[in-house]
Order: sequence, then structure tokens, then C-alpha cells
Amino acid sequence: MQAVILSIGDELVLGQTVDTNSAYLSSKLAERGIETRYHQTIADEQSVIAEAIVHASKLAPLMIITGGLGPTDDDLTRQALAEAMEVDLVEDPASMAAIRTMMERFGRKMADRNRVQALHPRGTAMIPNSCGTAPGIEAKLNIAAIYVMPGVPNEMVQMYARSIEPQLQTVSRVILTSKINTFGNGESNVAEMLGDLCDRHRNPLVGTTVSEGIVSVRVRSVFDDANVAREQLNQTIDEVEKALGAIVFGREGDTLQQAVIRLLRKQQRTVAAAESCTGGLINKMLTDIPGSSAAVIGGWVTYTNDMKRQQLGVTEESLAQHGAVSAQAASQMAQGALGNSEADIAIGLTGIAGPDGGSDEKPVGTIWIALAAKDMLEPVVRRFVLPGTRENVRDRAAKCALQMIRLHLMGQPLELIRWGSRG
Amino acid sequence: MQAVILSIGDELVLGQTVDTNSAYLSSKLAERGIETRYHQTIADEQSVIAEAIVHASKLAPLMIITGGLGPTDDDLTRQALAEAMEVDLVEDPASMAAIRTMMERFGRKMADRNRVQALHPRGTAMIPNSCGTAPGIEAKLNIAAIYVMPGVPNEMVQMYARSIEPQLQTVSRVILTSKINTFGNGESNVAEMLGDLCDRHRNPLVGTTVSEGIVSVRVRSVFDDANVAREQLNQTIDEVEKALGAIVFGREGDTLQQAVIRLLRKQQRTVAAAESCTGGLINKMLTDIPGSSAAVIGGWVTYTNDMKRQQLGVTEESLAQHGAVSAQAASQMAQGALGNSEADIAIGLTGIAGPDGGSDEKPVGTIWIALAAKDMLEPVVRRFVLPGTRENVRDRAAKCALQMIRLHLMGQPLELIRWGSRG
Repeated sequence: MQAVILSIGDELVLGQTVDTNSAYLSSKLAERGIETRYHQTIADEQSVIAEAIVHASKLAPLMIITGGLGPTDDDLTRQALAEAMEVDLVEDPASMAAIRTMMERFGRKMADRNRVQALHPRGTAMIPNSCGTAPGIEAKLNIAAIYVMPGVPNEMVQMYARSIEPQLQTVSRVILTSKINTFGNGESNVAEMLGDLCDRHRNPLVGTTVSEGIVSVRVRSVFDDANVAREQLNQTIDEVEKALGAIVFGREGDTLQQAVIRLLRKQQRTVAAAESCTGGLINKMLTDIPGSSAAVIGGWVTYTNDMKRQQLGVTEESLAQHGAVSAQAASQMAQGALGNSEADIAIGLTGIAGPDGGSDEKPVGTIWIALAAKDMLEPVVRRFVLPGTRENVRDRAAKCALQMIRLHLMGQPLELIRWGSRG
Repeated sequence: MQAVILSIGDELVLGQTVDTNSAYLSSKLAERGIETRYHQTIADEQSVIAEAIVHASKLAPLMIITGGLGPTDDDLTRQALAEAMEVDLVEDPASMAAIRTMMERFGRKMADRNRVQALHPRGTAMIPNSCGTAPGIEAKLNIAAIYVMPGVPNEMVQMYARSIEPQLQTVSRVILTSKINTFGNGESNVAEMLGDLCDRHRNPLVGTTVSEGIVSVRVRSVFDDANVAREQLNQTIDEVEKALGAIVFGREGDTLQQAVIRLLRKQQRTVAAAESCTGGLINKMLTDIPGSSAAVIGGWVTYTNDMKRQQLGVTEESLAQHGAVSAQAASQMAQGALGNSEADIAIGLTGIAGPDGGSDEKPVGTIWIALAAKDMLEPVVRRFVLPGTRENVRDRAAKCALQMIRLHLMGQPLELIRWGSRG
């Protein structure tokens, strides 16, 4: 079973808006074993849309179209569908009443131009829209069942879930996927730890991807029976998590900062961070999380040497002898942050984010991170040499700090972070 | 003149990788007056690719294909093109030599699987690749001139610029676009200031778009002659910038933080920021910019009341009387940051980012921002009530602070920021 997805809109063809609907629909269809033959993005031109509908209607038994159902002159999807079906447009009284009610709820009068949204090609059915004025359309043409939905993502998602997905039959194969997120090891290290789990002939299939320093393990389970697919998926997830241990910080969309805040709150501990080259990013990430105020004290952005000395007590001597990018400076920053706040744990981070400022001894990407804690006699300090742009280096450095906090809270060795580390 | 753009790859159809090539090519083609009829994203399936090539070759005189030229088994674009043209694949000796040289440069042996990259459909020509192993292919089928390029964006961009763009003739109409970026006023205010410039029948056409609180004015100039198009574009840009005044901070991809750092460096002044609910974001944004260390001292993330008192001298009295989210707290934070550092200008920001913690008097989104400076007797303080999620509120709040710094440096009234402001 195959599907074609069409997205309509000038702004999509010109790349001014990124089409997220097609990827969403592809993954939802894959869950039911339906494969996407292709996506097509088409400008607001009636004849081109009509031609694409006719073409696709001969190729695949399912067609999903999003966009072009709005009230303005450049919204032409319903006209194009009528052209493709060689029928005229007729008004749907129920839709007209629904649009009027929706407009009134927002305290607006029904504009003449909204009337067009109650039109549909003769012989097709309307699909109600629970959160917008544009109803969808359900049609048949050649071998294809056609569903037209608004392009506004949340309206599309609701309409798909309520009115379209329930009509789709799960075909022979069910495809379920999951993602397990790790930080601290390169992709090849992770693959090595996974061993036989990565066999290309295995089902569920296990593979790795990297995005912004996060190595994720993707599991894809394909079976005829939905229960078997779910069971096998869960069993493989367990095996993956067992093989990788503490570098796994979450699943699906989980972030490192969520994992850190969750642990801190559970253990009723607090953290502070003193940042040089990350310039506030660690604190920003930690405070991304709602409710982080119970666990985050705050911290310092000590971008100049003066700030390091005055605010955190980094010594002249250590700056003169070892420089601002050194184990000594990072340690003193962490100790200063711990001493000058009520925090249980403190991070000190200093480094060279680039693009300039590197040397042979301390190349761009060199980062020192120290972790001090009330229950430790001395800070622990680690060195990383991180690749990439200024933005990459800062992002990876902040993530190394978050993973250090997380491993410390779990009583795990910080040496589990091998990514970019040099002793 | 119309073009069709095809992108090949399973990862694109599944939405795992966002296809940026198509948008890039659409905008480059538009510069030459060539309109994109549609984009199509196709999985790595030879017969489906071949069918899409045949279909498009009858519709538009130009076809650009990206992706599927790699050395692995799922790279099938050259085979699909041969299938569409009903010819066999032949080996190109010059390409074979070029691939061997490229591999050797990276210290690798020529793998057998790379040999496939020197194959092309009989009767087509190879396009050299200056930065990768996959050459492109140039072909003719039905009414279409076809150019196939690698999917790796930088290889594609180079190949397009060197070998394809010079062959394209600029057709009747040239389309040039530009973007002028503002912060501090809503989209409807900006449209009002632009007045007649927004007339829908004007050429160059002027319109507004909003992204992450930044209101951008898009100018689109369409003329037969490239010089006239450029001249008219520039003239309209001047008129737009004159109508909007100091809320304009840059063009095209410019950011507020770039504009702030540029002004600070020019005036040899420095800034520090004391942040509560933005949690480090202002400092993070300022230090995004390479070379910001000449202008940014750093600052404090005072997430708790204790930190506000101990680090910045916010008084018990003001916290008890007015609360941590108040004009008084913001002013004392800015004054503390100015007094405790060498900075010329300091920001104090406090607010309620949500989703919880709001009240009738101080709803979620309430932000107080104070700006203190060595050359001012007292801090100025402004209140904003910002809409949206926690992430939205924090982002907009940091941008309000950056725009306040910028307007202060330019000697412009901070009241120019009307966006979300309540006195």
C-alpha cells in the first residue's frame, strides 16, 4: 500500500516556510505500514495542482493533500480538485453554518470571502474542522482515496487524528519506531557497544544517527501483528539501554537538561554554573525547563579575567601561570561558584570557542570543565577538545557540563564521557 | 520559463533530513526569472524516480535533480535517469581518474563501490565536482534540459554556481528580493508605518512577515531588465528604512546581537547583564558573536532571591515590598551589575516566563527590564507583557533587552519599542 502526499503553497515552493506536514504524515502512515511513494510541493496555481492530483490518482490508492483551503484568492486547492474530477463546486449548508459559528465565537462577522470555504466539488464529502474555519474534503478519483486538509499544522494534526486515521486500515506490515538518546560517546563507539544489535538483517532494526552532538539509537520494528511489533520494539529498547548504560539520558524528544532537572528535583539538590566561553548557555539550557527554579540557583558569566577574579576569586597567580583556559581556572571558578552561593553542586567552564584565539598548545575547541560539590573534598576537572564551529563548540561544551552533572548525581564515573575528551 | 526540482532520498521522504536544496535552487532560479512549477521529494526507488523524471520532462524545459549519486546500493539516480532515457550506463574515463585523485588526496584507496560514480547514461555528459567524489550529469529528455547534482548541500551549491548557472539564460522577468529586519513593533504597526509602500499593485512589492518576534519587511522587485530590477529594489529598500527609522536593525540574515556588538565595538563601550527569568539567554546571545569579548563583560544569572541580594545588592526591603518581579528589582539588578563590573552599560531583567507563577496583577509574560549606564544618573526601566510559551517569552524578553541596548547606544528613545510594552 502506497500513498502520495501533496503540499500546496507558494511559500513552500519558495522555501519561505518549511513543510513539516509531509514529514509528520509520512511517519504517521508508516506506523500503519503505508509507504509514502513521494511528496510533491506545488505553487498556488490551479492547473498545476489539478494535473498533479490526476497524475497521483493513477499511481497510489491513497492521496493526502494539505494547504490551499483558506479564504483568500490564492487558495485554489478546492477549485483544482474540482478541475481534476471534472465537476463543479457546490455549497455545503452544514459547513456554512459551522463557519458562521466559528467566526462568531471569535467575535467576528462572517466575511463574504469565508463563504468559499463551504464549497466542495460535487460528489465529495466535507470533513469537519474542530479548530479552524476551513473544513477538509474527502473524494475518490481513479484508484485513489483523496483527503484534503488545511495547511495550518495544528488543524491538520487534529483533523488527521479525528477523521482520517480512523478510516485507514492497518495494512500487512506495521512499522513502529523509537529513539534512545545518548551523550558522551562518538557514533562509532556507540555502534561498538551495541555490537550484534546493529546487524543489518535484524528485526527490529537498530541504527544510529547524530544530531548536535547527541548520538541517538533508532529502533525500527516491522511485523504483521501490531502487538508483536510493540513487544519486539520494547524488548530491543531494553537491550539497547542495557548495552549503553549511563550515557543514555532519555527517549524520543527528551533533552539532557530535562534529565538533569528531573534528577536534581528528585534528589532535592541545587546547581550553580560559572561560565566563560559558553557565555550563559549552560544556565540558559537548565532554565529552559519549567519548574527549574526549584533546582537552579543561577550563576555567573565571567567573560573577562576581571570578572573571574572579582566574582569568583580566581587568583592572579593562576591566571598568570596557567592562563584563563586551564584546569586551575576552571577549578577555581567552580569552587568560587560553590562558595558564593547556596548550591550543592557547581560547574566552572572555560575554553576557546573560536573562530580565533587558538594556539598549538590550546587549539580552538579546548574546554576545561570542573565540577565542585559540597560532598566532595576537591573539584574534579576534565579537558575536552571539541570540533566544529563556534556554535558547535559552545553547544557541545554546555552538553558535556550537563552530562557531568547528571553522571555525578547518579554516582557514575565522569570518564563515561569519552566524546572529545583528552584526559 | 518553468523548472521542476526533484530531490531524491529516503531520509527526505521520511522527514529525517530537511530538504534545504530545493528552496535554495528555487530562489536562485527566481533571480533569473525562472519559476519553479513544483518540487518533488522521492524515495530511493529506481522505478519511481524514473517515472517522475519522464513525467517532468514533458512539462517544463528545465529539470534539476539532487541526491542519489553516492557510492552505496541505495543511490539509484543515475540508474533511474538511464531507465527514463531508455539507454544503458557507460563509464567515463575522465571521471574515473578524477575520483581516484580525490580519494588519494584524502589518503584513501579507491573502493570498487566508487567506480559506480563514474557511470552515466549513454549520450549524457558529466559535470565535474570540485569538492566531492560524485560528478554531476547533464542530459536532455523530451522538452527538458536535465541537470543532476549531488545532494550534499555544499557540493550542490558549488556545482550549481560553476557549471549550471552560467548555462541558464536570464528569461523575460528578473525577480530580486531583499529582507529588512525590525524589532519592537507588531506586524500591523509596521504595516501602518509603511503606508502606501504596502500597496498590493506596487512593484517592487512590499510585504511583512514575522518570525520569532522579528518583523521583517520583504521587498520583491520584478522587471525585465536586471539593472532596473536592482535599482528599483535598492530605492524601495531606502524608502522602507526611512519609513521605519531606528527599529530597523539589519538586512537579510542579520541578527539583533550582531547589530548590538557592532555598535558597542564601534563606540568602544562594554555591556554586562544581570538576568533572572531569561536565565543567561541575553549573555548567550551577545556571546554568540565572534569577537564579542571586546564588548561583553559577562554578568549574573540570579535565579533565586538570595543570588539577587548577595550578588547584586537588591534590597530585602524592595523584594518584600514590590517582589522580585518589579521595576525596583530590575533597577537594582542593573545598578548592581554596573557597580560590580567595569561595564559602561548594564541590563537588569526580571519577569515571569511561565507556564506557572502568574497572578492577576503580574500575569505570565510580565517582564521588567532596566538599563543603567555610567553616563546616566538613574536606570531607565520598562515593562513588557509578552505573549506565548515559556520559550517565546524568554526569547522576546532577551530581544527587548538587546534592542534597548541598541537604541541607547544610538541615542534613540526606548519608547520606540512598542511591542508588548505596557508603560
